[in-house]
Amino acid sequence: MALANVSLQVLPLVDEKELYGVVDKVIEYIDSCGVKYEVGPMETTMEGELSRLLKIVEKAQNICVKYGASRVASVVKIDYKPSGITMEEKIGKYRK
Amino acid sequence: MALANVSLQVLPLVDEKELYGVVDKVIEYIDSCGVKYEVGPMETTMEGELSRLLKIVEKAQNICVKYGASRVASVVKIDYKPSGITMEEKIGKYRK
Amino acid sequence: MALANVSLQVLPLVDEKELYGVVDKVIEYIDSCGVKYEVGPMETTMEGELSRLLKIVEKAQNICVKYGASRVASVVKIDYKPSGITMEEKIGKYRK
Amino acid sequence: MALANVSLQVLPLVDEKELYGVVDKVIEYIDSCGVKYEVGPMETTMEGELSRLLKIVEKAQNICVKYGASRVASVVKIDYKPSGITMEEKIGKYRK
Repeated sequence: MALANVSLQVLPLVDEKELYGVVDKVIEYIDSCGVKYEVGPMETTMEGELSRLLKIVEKAQNICVKYGASRVASVVKIDYKPSGITMEEKIGKYRK
Repeated sequence: MALANVSLQVLPLVDEKELYGVVDKVIEYIDSCGVKYEVGPMETTMEGELSRLLKIVEKAQNICVKYGASRVASVVKIDYKPSGITMEEKIGKYRK
Repeated sequence: MALANVSLQVLPLVDEKELYGVVDKVIEYIDSCGVKYEVGPMETTMEGELSRLLKIVEKAQNICVKYGASRVASVVKIDYKPSGITMEEKIGKYRK
Repeated sequence: MALANVSLQVLPLVDEKELYGVVDKVIEYIDSCGVKYEVGPMETTMEGELSRLLKIVEKAQNICVKYGASRVASVVKIDYKPSGITMEEKIGKYRK
């Protein structure tokens, strides 16, 4: 099973004071999924099997709604290669 | 079943002269899926049930690889609301 | 002067009932700039000189704020090639 | 002068073995600009004045071409608020 990278930015339509709280709920959910992930300033990037990661992306929309969003816009980026891709190969040298 | 909007831009890593050909194969695949869609200059937007559209996004990565991409970067945008969203409500007035 | 393609999706943080109104103001502004553009369901794509298009993107943030957004998230896509790129070469065959 | 957050993902069309090298050149350039930035697995996020950051985004396209890209696709995300936004307020708690 090859690893893909999928990053997710959720932009729930809520009052600005509630924005980070809703995003936190999504990150909490990602954390509960047991996939490798890294939180960044504009998106959270996950590493795992593509189909599983897209299921997480789907569920994240509902979490935003559950915590108060009237609507959710999301930006998802996929980095895919049959032999697999890791986050480490991309950022390892920048994190020493 | 509420409709969501999902847009997909695939950026297959191929020789530039093959780029549009691979993108065409992805659009051909989307067309074969029977969902409503619109081809734009930077992405194709689909309308349908979120989980189904994300399956199409997933499959599109494999199509790029099948037609020669060594790697695929994709940008996916989701517009989601429990009561549903149509493309028509967003672009209707700009297409008269 | 080579043409680039730049697409812009603005996601202003406003009440949902005001969302399309603010987006309309941004499209109205783009229209006033005299560049070629096409409105899509998830983004508006412009064709022109890169530096000029990025100035429009910048100004669009202020327009969202002017019309009530407390905060603005935007997604911008650039398609750039020294010899130039047109929207027509990408979508022409899909619009017959 | 209010700070904005702008993230940049460059996707230069080059042979896959040269991909990370070209991306490294862009990050080297960002580093040389003296703005605060963070390298992530899918994008580099910068913090600074919006107009300045968009100039960096523009220049990054030329750097990709200079180092061999026949064409460059980029994804840029903007997070803007009149009173300013910092990366720290978004990721601080996730980096303890």
